[in-house]
Amino acid sequence: MNEARTVILKIGGSVITNKSEELAARTQIIDRLADETQRANVKGLIIVHGGGSFGHPSAQRNAIKEGLRDPRQTIGFAQTHHFMTVLNGLVMDSLIMHNVPAVSVTPSSCVLTENGRIKSFEDTPLKMLLKTGFLPVLYGDAVLDTELGFTVLSGDQLVSALAMKFNAERIIMGVDVDGLYDADPKIEKNARLLTHLTLEELKKLQSKLDKPTACDVTGGMFGKIAELIPALERGIPVTIVNATTPNSVFKVLKGERTTSTLIEKE
Amino acid sequence: MNEARTVILKIGGSVITNKSEELAARTQIIDRLADETQRANVKGLIIVHGGGSFGHPSAQRNAIKEGLRDPRQTIGFAQTHHFMTVLNGLVMDSLIMHNVPAVSVTPSSCVLTENGRIKSFEDTPLKMLLKTGFLPVLYGDAVLDTELGFTVLSGDQLVSALAMKFNAERIIMGVDVDGLYDADPKIEKNARLLTHLTLEELKKLQSKLDKPTACDVTGGMFGKIAELIPALERGIPVTIVNATTPNSVFKVLKGERTTSTLIEKE
Repeated sequence: MNEARTVILKIGGSVITNKSEELAARTQIIDRLADETQRANVKGLIIVHGGGSFGHPSAQRNAIKEGLRDPRQTIGFAQTHHFMTVLNGLVMDSLIMHNVPAVSVTPSSCVLTENGRIKSFEDTPLKMLLKTGFLPVLYGDAVLDTELGFTVLSGDQLVSALAMKFNAERIIMGVDVDGLYDADPKIEKNARLLTHLTLEELKKLQSKLDKPTACDVTGGMFGKIAELIPALERGIPVTIVNATTPNSVFKVLKGERTTSTLIEKE
Repeated sequence: MNEARTVILKIGGSVITNKSEELAARTQIIDRLADETQRANVKGLIIVHGGGSFGHPSAQRNAIKEGLRDPRQTIGFAQTHHFMTVLNGLVMDSLIMHNVPAVSVTPSSCVLTENGRIKSFEDTPLKMLLKTGFLPVLYGDAVLDTELGFTVLSGDQLVSALAMKFNAERIIMGVDVDGLYDADPKIEKNARLLTHLTLEELKKLQSKLDKPTACDVTGGMFGKIAELIPALERGIPVTIVNATTPNSVFKVLKGERTTSTLIEKE
């Protein structure tokens, strides 16, 4: 029914939640992004969202990422997963209110990791959803791990895995900054937004900045981008855009020009 | 970690929702059942709940059970699944508030049906959850179907499939009547609660009552029970108990006597 190539839109946890307060959703932004998604009406779209102040505080408090070491962590795992489903519920509420046929796919119900990396992914329901014209929505989640017992699966790792699995046409990273900078724009007044980068230029920039003190330079984007390198190497372009700015995600979804960073293999 | 045999507890949609009103949860009953689950502390437990006034109205309005015939149904499918996740969220909230390490497993993310019957069930995460000491919680859901496009998977079919998959020790059906009657207790003043039945007696009763006018006799329990016959034939006993009566589910979980119907193979 739907033969369009897959497009993956990541919505960062820092976009849809207020990270300075636990369980604080930015419902107006969630609603605006649902409206932009509906208006753009991109076929073959998959949305992945982060955890922000719903997933991270509980995961950190209970050391979920480090794995099962103490039976008392199990309630923390249950809580972390539950909080993620609550945030996801808000996203789904908005999408469905905007008449988008969005269906959540629960990562912990179909993904297993091994030492934190995706080991198996039962993706038949996901493929059928796409084929039938639904918009699947996934999220960073607390998942079971064959070595660690359990761990945290980041939305960024999911984005990369999905992009490669479906040979995506492109990846859109909706974050809370305008893109990738050549220096930290919060410190360096002359920091310059990089509007276009090749994979080679990205790697050069990364090695230049790869020192402990530089970990959050360029707006904290490098951890995310590192996860996407395998997809970039496969030729899948990545656009980084500020999803807190109205209409930016809409424009990128429609292929229109807007402030952003485009990274391509060559 | 947990070598206990599996016990399956079904909580009917008519127990945890008010079926006369759409999206009406009985949160006090949900909370009491979470408390009973926590106090009983049964190892190897799986909970499956129904949809009641969250799943059924939207599923019926959009003819989800009958499958995909019109693209306009997709938003109805999305909505039906979403409403089920909302009801499930209330159940998970209560269980986690009572310190039960409960983790939801989303049927539509790991089950496919064929003409309404379960065709594939990616159960590795579920098995790992049980082994790690979690309490998995599933529910009746709108799922994808290889023949129909999509359909409704009832909680009762899930219960039967899970019981056989895990060779369950027993099944507990928490409903809104005291058990199986030899006549409709709402019509026949002398209707008698059947406290113990063999599979053979059940089948005789079923054929006796198997006429159009008798479809809801015995308290409307026959549809549910028919789904459980394959599990009963495998020797898995089924207890039907009134989950709206405080402490009844607790007593059955603990193996204590209470008003109920026990059905066994022999």
